[in-house]
Amino acid sequence: MAVYTDVAADELADFLKNYDIGELLSYKGIAEGVENSNYLLHTTAGSFFLTLYEKRVAAGDLPFFLGLMGHLATHGIVCPQPVRTRGGETLGRLAERPAAIIDFLEGVWPRKPTVTHCAATGEALAKLHLAGRDFPMTRANALSVRGWRPLFDQAAPRVDTLQHGLCDFLGAELDHLERHWPDKLPAGVIHADLFPDNVLFLGDRLSGLIDFYFACNDFFAYDVAICLNAWCFEPDHSFNVTKARALLGAYNRERVLSEAEQTALPLLARGAALRFLLTRLVDYLNVPAGALVKPKDPLEYVRKLRFQQGIDNIRDYGIAVSGLVA
Amino acid sequence: MAVYTDVAADELADFLKNYDIGELLSYKGIAEGVENSNYLLHTTAGSFFLTLYEKRVAAGDLPFFLGLMGHLATHGIVCPQPVRTRGGETLGRLAERPAAIIDFLEGVWPRKPTVTHCAATGEALAKLHLAGRDFPMTRANALSVRGWRPLFDQAAPRVDTLQHGLCDFLGAELDHLERHWPDKLPAGVIHADLFPDNVLFLGDRLSGLIDFYFACNDFFAYDVAICLNAWCFEPDHSFNVTKARALLGAYNRERVLSEAEQTALPLLARGAALRFLLTRLVDYLNVPAGALVKPKDPLEYVRKLRFQQGIDNIRDYGIAVSGLVA
Repeated sequence: MAVYTDVAADELADFLKNYDIGELLSYKGIAEGVENSNYLLHTTAGSFFLTLYEKRVAAGDLPFFLGLMGHLATHGIVCPQPVRTRGGETLGRLAERPAAIIDFLEGVWPRKPTVTHCAATGEALAKLHLAGRDFPMTRANALSVRGWRPLFDQAAPRVDTLQHGLCDFLGAELDHLERHWPDKLPAGVIHADLFPDNVLFLGDRLSGLIDFYFACNDFFAYDVAICLNAWCFEPDHSFNVTKARALLGAYNRERVLSEAEQTALPLLARGAALRFLLTRLVDYLNVPAGALVKPKDPLEYVRKLRFQQGIDNIRDYGIAVSGLVA
Repeated sequence: MAVYTDVAADELADFLKNYDIGELLSYKGIAEGVENSNYLLHTTAGSFFLTLYEKRVAAGDLPFFLGLMGHLATHGIVCPQPVRTRGGETLGRLAERPAAIIDFLEGVWPRKPTVTHCAATGEALAKLHLAGRDFPMTRANALSVRGWRPLFDQAAPRVDTLQHGLCDFLGAELDHLERHWPDKLPAGVIHADLFPDNVLFLGDRLSGLIDFYFACNDFFAYDVAICLNAWCFEPDHSFNVTKARALLGAYNRERVLSEAEQTALPLLARGAALRFLLTRLVDYLNVPAGALVKPKDPLEYVRKLRFQQGIDNIRDYGIAVSGLVA
């Protein structure tokens, strides 16, 4: 849950004069997002998000994120679109922070994803990868393989307080991934955080993708691997093959996974599991005692990592490669 | 900021089938209210609040709060109105908690109240007192004079860590108030928490009163005293006589303050200051170290209490009684 920057009504009303979105009717701080302060605005023209970018987001990255959202929205992806000021700007300043007004998308995120949700997500992810191809800006993925060792080093001294032997286990996994991580796979703009809470639905229909604040340039198949981990495990930690097949099949119908990508997928899924495991560990070990913010459970991703270590081949996901390749 | 109870989309959609408010489009947890979990819903019929009542609110009090909001709304007070189910109920159950759907009011609360805001609040408070007169339910004020000593006893051992001598100061004040608190003044339903964040405006026009979860039966003038403390001090802790005159004058035009009420007002304002001082102290001393929730500053109310101790007569607020009485 975010630490909120409060905004005075008169300052906000002044800020909105730069935009052509009507008069302010109300604004409410939203208990979502840990990186930014978000407000849901009602104006005489409709609903909008106001995002104030806090310190954890590098101000230099904002033009990439906002530019990407605008680019994708004009290339057939339903995602929030930054609203431009009368002067054509998407980024302003409010309450001493960088600030943007962004379209509000209706929809609810699935707390219990179904096979239908997984298929819709796979399709949307592939379309996002295709739509991002001609986006001219780039942003390196600070949380890919080269970013993991610093996180590991930070967590290592206290990791075993969570689970005996975890430090050695993670150290060995990190060595393995650093040695075997592919250096050449189809790449482009990826979402990098397409968890269920970032995919909105109205009934079974996907109504939008949100939260592009981890988007970057990296392997497309790594984005797929993140989704496999985020969408295809059940609450009891079992891997649901039907969901994986639906997600991968729908992805592949929009953008065919090459043989190299299919071969790499199990390794990428190990890496994707380690990446979220490490950031959750660092958050977990740094949360103040007694804080009301409940950090996400790192051990969930230990279980996912162990599962992915047992996969040799994409067929082990229960997916016949011949059936996958369109 | 509230600790949120998360609600699954399908459970919420099921819950909404009891109501005639259209289909769910989105719901966002709101970073407001410390007692309850609040969601802002968009449906095909408009915007609504969903409130899940957490443990701090006694379930037995909910019919009073919801009944009062319904009563006031049908008696000319603009306030959120509970939406009834098709079966006529205002209170349901969701995510294992009592839950209600409530009208969403547009408006923004004034971070920097002006004299105009103070006058509008005084007028609205008087109208609320009048509109509540024939409300048939009652609820004792657990946070009036008899409720203060238990709070004081809870805070006393650590109070002096905040300010040297504070414990003796508060103990003497409590003795004084217990001895001199009036037992007979015009009474009825009061809001009991009408701070600026509970009064919504669209421009200079008051658009609604919200948050009735401290409402109870007590002296009307005590409610006025709470507002004097909440609205008429400047950020530098000075008392703004122009604002007090505007608030009291506007109140008095709607509901005349009797001579007994005017005489009691300075004492009631001391009591109102002590009441918020004590609850803030208890919250402050019990907040976990490092928590992201910043407790409200108790010392703000020490300053207000010291100011009110210097007032002998309503004239000392800068208000001529003859001018006040209509």
